[in-house]
Amino acid sequence: MENIFTDEYFMKKALHEAEIAFEKGEIPVGAVVVIDNRVIARSHNLTELLNDVTAHAEMQAITAAANFLGGKYLKDCTLYVTLEPCQMCAGALYWSQVSKVVFGAGDDHRGYRKMGAQLHPKTIVVNGVMENECAALMKTFFQKRR
Amino acid sequence: MENIFTDEYFMKKALHEAEIAFEKGEIPVGAVVVIDNRVIARSHNLTELLNDVTAHAEMQAITAAANFLGGKYLKDCTLYVTLEPCQMCAGALYWSQVSKVVFGAGDDHRGYRKMGAQLHPKTIVVNGVMENECAALMKTFFQKRR
Repeated sequence: MENIFTDEYFMKKALHEAEIAFEKGEIPVGAVVVIDNRVIARSHNLTELLNDVTAHAEMQAITAAANFLGGKYLKDCTLYVTLEPCQMCAGALYWSQVSKVVFGAGDDHRGYRKMGAQLHPKTIVVNGVMENECAALMKTFFQKRR
Repeated sequence: MENIFTDEYFMKKALHEAEIAFEKGEIPVGAVVVIDNRVIARSHNLTELLNDVTAHAEMQAITAAANFLGGKYLKDCTLYVTLEPCQMCAGALYWSQVSKVVFGAGDDHRGYRKMGAQLHPKTIVVNGVMENECAALMKTFFQKRR
């Protein structure tokens, strides 16, 4: 039997979160945290609604997942996020020691790679999963805002 | 008359926050946010108590200051912190567009400068304010923990 729990499967859930952000007028970024093929945290960007630059999808997902697990480290967890993390979120992911990070669209301006920040050396990174869909949602958002 | 509102004056308040963290068994880092010589946010590291790697002093101070101001940008604010920010906190400070960051002790291992992360190009950075006192508190904490 084919494994349905692919990276695409979980990225779709992150993209669904991004769509909720879009509908709220937030920059459409969504994230989920998964352990043993189970989603234990889901979140989307809320910087406008909360008036808080730290309220990125990833930050909320890290806090929620740690809360669920009862410990602050996200070993054996995978974080799926529709956009490449910024240096703040990469720094938080670094501290969390998350096992794997999967992101959809790259961010050539404010992504952690461009800014010079680092994920944990033990964290596996996969990028480009559902890249077109994730990037298209961002593009539509910024076109509408102009 | 001499201006009492020096960087040392406000760093002492951040150091007081760090001492509270110390007493709670947290890595002793404290922060305050100041606007027009008025402290509008104070916080200390709570990663252990909250089981949350994102609960650094600076992150809480940024959220609290934005809440106080009713807007997410910290223009015209200065953040005082006893230890050099990590890449997560530097990234959050970047997004906040804070006017000035003053830190006490440097962090040669996980500080944002070593890790390659960046503050906002418009942010003024001052370091080494009450460096010895800030570093001594950290040293005592880690000696006790061994």
